[in-house]
Amino acid sequence: MGVEIERKFLVASDHWRSHVTRSVRMAQGYINDMAALREARQNASVRVRIAGDEAFLNLKSREPGPSRQEFDYPIPVADAEALLALCVGGRVQKVRHYIPQDDLTWEVDEFDGDNAGLVVAELELPAVDAAFARPAWLGEEVTDEQRYYNLALAERPYSAWSARERS
Amino acid sequence: MGVEIERKFLVASDHWRSHVTRSVRMAQGYINDMAALREARQNASVRVRIAGDEAFLNLKSREPGPSRQEFDYPIPVADAEALLALCVGGRVQKVRHYIPQDDLTWEVDEFDGDNAGLVVAELELPAVDAAFARPAWLGEEVTDEQRYYNLALAERPYSAWSARERS
Repeated sequence: MGVEIERKFLVASDHWRSHVTRSVRMAQGYINDMAALREARQNASVRVRIAGDEAFLNLKSREPGPSRQEFDYPIPVADAEALLALCVGGRVQKVRHYIPQDDLTWEVDEFDGDNAGLVVAELELPAVDAAFARPAWLGEEVTDEQRYYNLALAERPYSAWSARERS
Repeated sequence: MGVEIERKFLVASDHWRSHVTRSVRMAQGYINDMAALREARQNASVRVRIAGDEAFLNLKSREPGPSRQEFDYPIPVADAEALLALCVGGRVQKVRHYIPQDDLTWEVDEFDGDNAGLVVAELELPAVDAAFARPAWLGEEVTDEQRYYNLALAERPYSAWSARERS
């Protein structure tokens, strides 16, 4: 179990691409009913993710703010495929690009499928108030905007957003 | 991933006790909202179980009949304790007694806590129509009685059953 502190940003330009050292295609879905989680009848999300040739079962507590308990377990890819078939809500597909910066790593998620057009940069931090350098390509912070979370994107993808929500 | 074929029975007497070769205390809970699963807004249960000094995360598809897909992953006990705190519904506590019989093993669950007084014998079979010997202590089959499932017991324990439901 780890406690995850993650900040999310939009990107202001495509200049992040030249800094990418590794990219992995991901497909993920949620076993949990979305409404049950949103309405606090369930306290943790249950996500199945295939990342390249690996797969993971991930549980994340639902708590306000940027810090939450996270549990991540490797599972066989064949299991993940069977579990994805049991998922509810939409499947979220993306390419995750890794950009090292000092001791940290930016993860830039370039979505496709129903979320095509959306690019979100995430940074996992060792502490809530940890300092970090902002690269020139970094855009507006959206850490507190629920609609950008993968969980929300599975239920209501980018293609369903209004023009105002996209800006 | 395995496909689980399980038959459940009540016990007709206490004579099973003399055949027990091993007993393990278990505590388990469910991460998933019970209503979401019952109403098919979610397709798999997500169970956390501590069994003796081991712990497991278990996902089971919700399908009619005795056969279902099951996924079982060992996890650290400390993770299981943190996950149990995130569970909804009641915690189900029991001692599981193992009784070998030919190539099969009876699992006799003796519940305590809110389910004290309930004893259920389960047999996992290699095929839906597999033959097996019925020991003299075996009672009525309850495979198709949803209220005897651990999932149901977490939501509506034996202590809440009517006299008619108990018989």
